[in-house]
Amino acid sequence: MHQVTLGMIGGGTVGGGVYKALHTGGVSLLASRAGVRVRLKRIAVKAFDEPRKVEIPEKLLTTSWREVVEDPEVQIVVELAGGTTVAREMALAALRLGKPVVTANKALLSAHGEELFAAAREHGANLYYEASVAGGIPIIKALREGFIGNRIESIYGIVNGTCNYILSRMEAEGADFEEVLAEAQRLGYAEADPTLDVDGWDSQHKIGILASLAHGFWVRPEHIHVEGIRGIAQQDIRFARQLGYSIKLLGVVKRLRPKRRPDGSPAGTIQVAVYPALVPRQHVLASVSDSFNAVFVRGNVVGETLFYGRGAGQDPTASAVLADIADAALDLKHGVPDRVPAFRPHEQNGSVRPLGECVSRYYVRLTVTDRPGVLARVAAILGEARIGISSVMQPEGHEGRTVPLILMIHDAPNSAMQEALDRIRKLKVVHGPAVMYRVEDFEGGKD
Amino acid sequence: MHQVTLGMIGGGTVGGGVYKALHTGGVSLLASRAGVRVRLKRIAVKAFDEPRKVEIPEKLLTTSWREVVEDPEVQIVVELAGGTTVAREMALAALRLGKPVVTANKALLSAHGEELFAAAREHGANLYYEASVAGGIPIIKALREGFIGNRIESIYGIVNGTCNYILSRMEAEGADFEEVLAEAQRLGYAEADPTLDVDGWDSQHKIGILASLAHGFWVRPEHIHVEGIRGIAQQDIRFARQLGYSIKLLGVVKRLRPKRRPDGSPAGTIQVAVYPALVPRQHVLASVSDSFNAVFVRGNVVGETLFYGRGAGQDPTASAVLADIADAALDLKHGVPDRVPAFRPHEQNGSVRPLGECVSRYYVRLTVTDRPGVLARVAAILGEARIGISSVMQPEGHEGRTVPLILMIHDAPNSAMQEALDRIRKLKVVHGPAVMYRVEDFEGGKD
Repeated sequence: MHQVTLGMIGGGTVGGGVYKALHTGGVSLLASRAGVRVRLKRIAVKAFDEPRKVEIPEKLLTTSWREVVEDPEVQIVVELAGGTTVAREMALAALRLGKPVVTANKALLSAHGEELFAAAREHGANLYYEASVAGGIPIIKALREGFIGNRIESIYGIVNGTCNYILSRMEAEGADFEEVLAEAQRLGYAEADPTLDVDGWDSQHKIGILASLAHGFWVRPEHIHVEGIRGIAQQDIRFARQLGYSIKLLGVVKRLRPKRRPDGSPAGTIQVAVYPALVPRQHVLASVSDSFNAVFVRGNVVGETLFYGRGAGQDPTASAVLADIADAALDLKHGVPDRVPAFRPHEQNGSVRPLGECVSRYYVRLTVTDRPGVLARVAAILGEARIGISSVMQPEGHEGRTVPLILMIHDAPNSAMQEALDRIRKLKVVHGPAVMYRVEDFEGGKD
Repeated sequence: MHQVTLGMIGGGTVGGGVYKALHTGGVSLLASRAGVRVRLKRIAVKAFDEPRKVEIPEKLLTTSWREVVEDPEVQIVVELAGGTTVAREMALAALRLGKPVVTANKALLSAHGEELFAAAREHGANLYYEASVAGGIPIIKALREGFIGNRIESIYGIVNGTCNYILSRMEAEGADFEEVLAEAQRLGYAEADPTLDVDGWDSQHKIGILASLAHGFWVRPEHIHVEGIRGIAQQDIRFARQLGYSIKLLGVVKRLRPKRRPDGSPAGTIQVAVYPALVPRQHVLASVSDSFNAVFVRGNVVGETLFYGRGAGQDPTASAVLADIADAALDLKHGVPDRVPAFRPHEQNGSVRPLGECVSRYYVRLTVTDRPGVLARVAAILGEARIGISSVMQPEGHEGRTVPLILMIHDAPNSAMQEALDRIRKLKVVHGPAVMYRVEDFEGGKD
């Protein structure tokens, strides 16, 4: 049987998971199903005496990643170190030696994707990254191969398990953000420093990768508008529920109708953003709870699809890494390093339309003085901006001088909505912030 | 750019969909994303003057499938004719000429899969069949490649859109089976002869293919227990709902713990069956409604996953056919006909355990005389068979001499349950049939 030798960088959570999965069935499954026998020869770790949940025989370990990458026997480099600086160096070093790289590193791809894919092409070695988005869900393979005959109209992804866990618990228990975050940290679902997750950066990395793959040009993180979940109040989750919605942190990619700005310049072909959004409770994405991930994809031929599973954690991520190892090993066996097109830039005129120029529906909560005429003043500002109100809710049972006023707003450009809210905020009868979340109807991009 | 020439057999619903998808973007997407230009040269149809929803230029048409298969320019044969007799001949003829075959034909694979895969191996041509199961959902690719490092613990598939449509409408509208079936026929969701769908045979073909792929030996249809949805009464849907369940037609594959029978013979390694089952309403499969399909897969590494989308129809099926055409074309371009292992038989000791020897939970509805002591007699029979009752419901508001009695039953072997029900049916206080449906908790195979 054809043999392929692996080297791995990283012996932490994911690295340990891959080691375990390979040695408790993975090696023999790959042999029987793909006809390739893989051997994990060397693992580079930070230190020999790190605490490890999965025990790895010390003879496999080294603290020098170069020893792994440069070992002439090592044919595939599995990069599970994390970070974007040394990881970039490792991946480039392997690709320059013509060795295919398997990575789970979304931050690395987000920051240096273009450079890495260019290096892969130049040196005839492939880059495999199924584990970088949505853990065990084979969404990269689905977009790249399963939907190759489709124009991707829209993608809506719940791609951060920590945020989905927090929002699910807030909805189920009526608890506040800080409380649930603390609980999630105790349970190990959230990091001690939760910024990367709760402020939306992790989702940004992942949705940028999906947008790039779907639309054929590399979407840079700085073009992706990001809002996190830190500011979400319990009352907004409650009001959303009364209106028939759940609040989810979504990564959103929409294909837009081509359009020119008044000055004649093209206005961008896709929307890419991360924000908390109201999702109709009967929509299948609303039933994705706890730390599960899901990616909803609409293709022009296939219609609506959804992919659901565990988006993070040792084992689900290891499952995706093993799939990439199998693809890389088969490509080596058959001598076809570019049989699986890793990422093929093919859309010459693709660009991201700034969110301000994109259209959304909105949920708005104001805190207003409890007296007649308030709604009229708010409605007047919206009317002047040609923004339509679809419904108004003034919840009962609030006492005191101020009351919440909930508005559901028809499709309007994000910039017009922001400007109107800025004016509304300045009204004397409006107190505190004007809370605004987008509402998604999953109808895809609108002009 | 590398060119690949296709020949197609079948110009009906799916054939028309593939023609349309190729010529409204598909060809250029495959060129830009995969670097292969495909050309559809010839289409064999039953008759030139058939009515067609998608118009196909007459110069492409022929009524001789051999002309397509034997055309020396045709490199890939796309078989969309349906049926199992001539379709088998067509596929074998193409494979024997060393030409890869793309098919959407689940009945063909179910009946002749072993023979076709053997012919493919013998002649160095591959067989691609993504469209044969769950339409546009890339579930074949997910099982074959995405989860290659996993042992598949269980698969639960809603793989027949007609049945799911009927059951969803029955639940939503409180209507009876015959009424909803007639409506589905009017809307084109059900065939004039609905046997293949509502009696479970179509689901049998599909779940057999998934079981074979997941477990590495070809599962023959005659080993798959099948029950359809024809007998499902409105009251059972209502009672299930009261108990917190929806009724879905499921294709079920469970990996079982190895076991020997009292006579020492091995008892079969997997369960494969099609039956209506009670699904907890909070489970993600319960939210799959109307004509949508979904496949829930549990792998030993990846954990729980779900794939959701349109399982049939012109466009979703065309999406899957285009994905296979791209794979076949890439394999031709790179000269690697077996890069994608179509189906690799690798499990020497795999076999299907008869359903009677498998364990399930059950919902049972009896129609009993409304007088004391009835439950005691039923419970005595179950007790003698060592079958445990987990709950009993006697719905209120029923008048007359007889009342429904609902029992929820703990795990018990199917044969023991059948025998007990046969005895219960003969009790004088029990009238009419004893209705029994299995209850799925998605915990995978149990001994």
